[in-house]
Amino acid sequence: MLRKKEYPRNPDYVYNEGGMKKPVIAITMGDPAGIGPEICLRALASHAVLKSCVPVLFAGADILQRVAEACGLKMPQHVMSLEQWRKEPAPEIPTIVHCTDINAAKIVPGRVQQQCGRAAYECVSAAAEAAMAGRVAAMATAPIHKEALRAAGIPYPGHTEILAHITKTKRFCMMMASDKMMVSLVTTHTSLANVSRTLSQQRIFDTIELTAETMTRLGIKKPRIAVCGLNPHAGEHGLFGREEEELISPAIKKACKKGLLIEGPLAPDTAFLPRKMETTDAYVAMYHDQGLIPFKMLAFDNGVNITLGLPVVRTSVDHGTAFDIAWQGIASPKSMIQSVLWALHF
Amino acid sequence: MLRKKEYPRNPDYVYNEGGMKKPVIAITMGDPAGIGPEICLRALASHAVLKSCVPVLFAGADILQRVAEACGLKMPQHVMSLEQWRKEPAPEIPTIVHCTDINAAKIVPGRVQQQCGRAAYECVSAAAEAAMAGRVAAMATAPIHKEALRAAGIPYPGHTEILAHITKTKRFCMMMASDKMMVSLVTTHTSLANVSRTLSQQRIFDTIELTAETMTRLGIKKPRIAVCGLNPHAGEHGLFGREEEELISPAIKKACKKGLLIEGPLAPDTAFLPRKMETTDAYVAMYHDQGLIPFKMLAFDNGVNITLGLPVVRTSVDHGTAFDIAWQGIASPKSMIQSVLWALHF
Repeated sequence: MLRKKEYPRNPDYVYNEGGMKKPVIAITMGDPAGIGPEICLRALASHAVLKSCVPVLFAGADILQRVAEACGLKMPQHVMSLEQWRKEPAPEIPTIVHCTDINAAKIVPGRVQQQCGRAAYECVSAAAEAAMAGRVAAMATAPIHKEALRAAGIPYPGHTEILAHITKTKRFCMMMASDKMMVSLVTTHTSLANVSRTLSQQRIFDTIELTAETMTRLGIKKPRIAVCGLNPHAGEHGLFGREEEELISPAIKKACKKGLLIEGPLAPDTAFLPRKMETTDAYVAMYHDQGLIPFKMLAFDNGVNITLGLPVVRTSVDHGTAFDIAWQGIASPKSMIQSVLWALHF
Repeated sequence: MLRKKEYPRNPDYVYNEGGMKKPVIAITMGDPAGIGPEICLRALASHAVLKSCVPVLFAGADILQRVAEACGLKMPQHVMSLEQWRKEPAPEIPTIVHCTDINAAKIVPGRVQQQCGRAAYECVSAAAEAAMAGRVAAMATAPIHKEALRAAGIPYPGHTEILAHITKTKRFCMMMASDKMMVSLVTTHTSLANVSRTLSQQRIFDTIELTAETMTRLGIKKPRIAVCGLNPHAGEHGLFGREEEELISPAIKKACKKGLLIEGPLAPDTAFLPRKMETTDAYVAMYHDQGLIPFKMLAFDNGVNITLGLPVVRTSVDHGTAFDIAWQGIASPKSMIQSVLWALHF
């Protein structure tokens, strides 16, 4: 858990180069047994990333060394311990902050391992601390593995929930962003059978409001938000479920009263047709696959996951740990790079 | 309910023209207050339809007359009563079979009406009777309105269930077909909260098998079937739901043992990516929107709904009654025409 008071806001998180200010962005390694270390190393060497920010990678340095050798990649020279990072001014070059001490030699790529879950958590935790302290402008996270987290006794299914806990945030949601489509989710990593009882009018309203705030922050003055129904044909007036009438419509009405431009609840199967997308700035989906099926069809490997509502800016790749291709030198850093660049938008 | 014995199979359901055999296809009007009558009239005038079959429209003749006038369309000349149709040989020209006596003058377009629900049901019922008796080769249905059906006391949510009841079929499912994608649904018009408890291993297996049979019938010798999971990330090994382990995987195993080529359970959000579609002949989705969101994104207004497992071939449009544009002369008959042409594939 972060103790914010220990680290006062440090205004030198920007790096001056010929008058250009470059923000420092934290990147977290993700699960060491997945493609996280590889795509982070690749992102640290990306021209697009280096041009626009100073990337600081929160990782295990010895793990990165092993992955760099396995994948034929270069290790960044500048490595510091977490203690050094906390004491010294913000770096001006790509930097690795060594913040987990698990035994790199014992990691097997592509396997769920307790120590990997712990390492992934420690990196996220250290980066969140840096973000809360204002030492970095934003954080971009590589994929973690939910089973490894569980094996390590971390009681959260994903980054969003970890960060909500660390930053003591109650009102938050996950948004998927790309230049093709933006969609926020009211519920995320829960079984389909559990979706209906997890929904509430307040939660739907919060997601709508956070989405509208985010779109405004991205420069759209009056964002047009399309809200999906939960059931086939949006319930067809109660024939297949009453959540539209009891929860979704009241939340939409409340949001409209606050002056937001909301349409819905829409029949989910026609909500994502091209002609509807043209008049929609962002969607609000009721559950994971309702939003992610259309999103991935349109924006696969170009998408970014953003956590809305946190006091820190956090983006993430839109894919998993890809254990099947871990440490093979063939993972695409596209979504990781996009995550860093989207983090800079905010 | 159909009493099959009354009408023996009549082999003259094909029409000879210069040696070419043209099958007779039944079309049903759908809900009179929707776009059904208009798109049926347009389909009856379609060159593609007339070239390949003799369309017989089961409808209310006076309703069609009103809609034809409202939309500026031509009424086909050849109209017969249901009694005549039952006695006479199959027609050789586009024909209207008048099989519902509701008062056309009292129908208000774009509104749920009890008598419209009844009329829609009577047309489907008469066409099903003709199909079961072998008087028509297949039937293509225009959209009905579930609330109107309910108002008329018809205890079925849709065509599929009506036809399963009339033909006494227990093992059936709905498939959406287009040249872009084929997808069968294990559950259809039920609330999302109800999906999990409606699923069963048997039902999933039946849907897989019916889908494979249909693809084989369409000329694909060894169809590759992709089966979706129910939960986010296909449950991630039980973290978000156990239906994959308890129901879907066992059904897939059973199907594989029968020699079918099945892949799954797939994470729903990546199941419909282009590279997966390339190696998939047909999908099996667990619920309505899981299959219909991707399907409509790829094939909107070109899609056709097919009921698998019935003793009669039945296709349908993939859209609803579109009450908002009923009787205005602006409805697209594209999906209706596709339905007739797909009915001919079988």
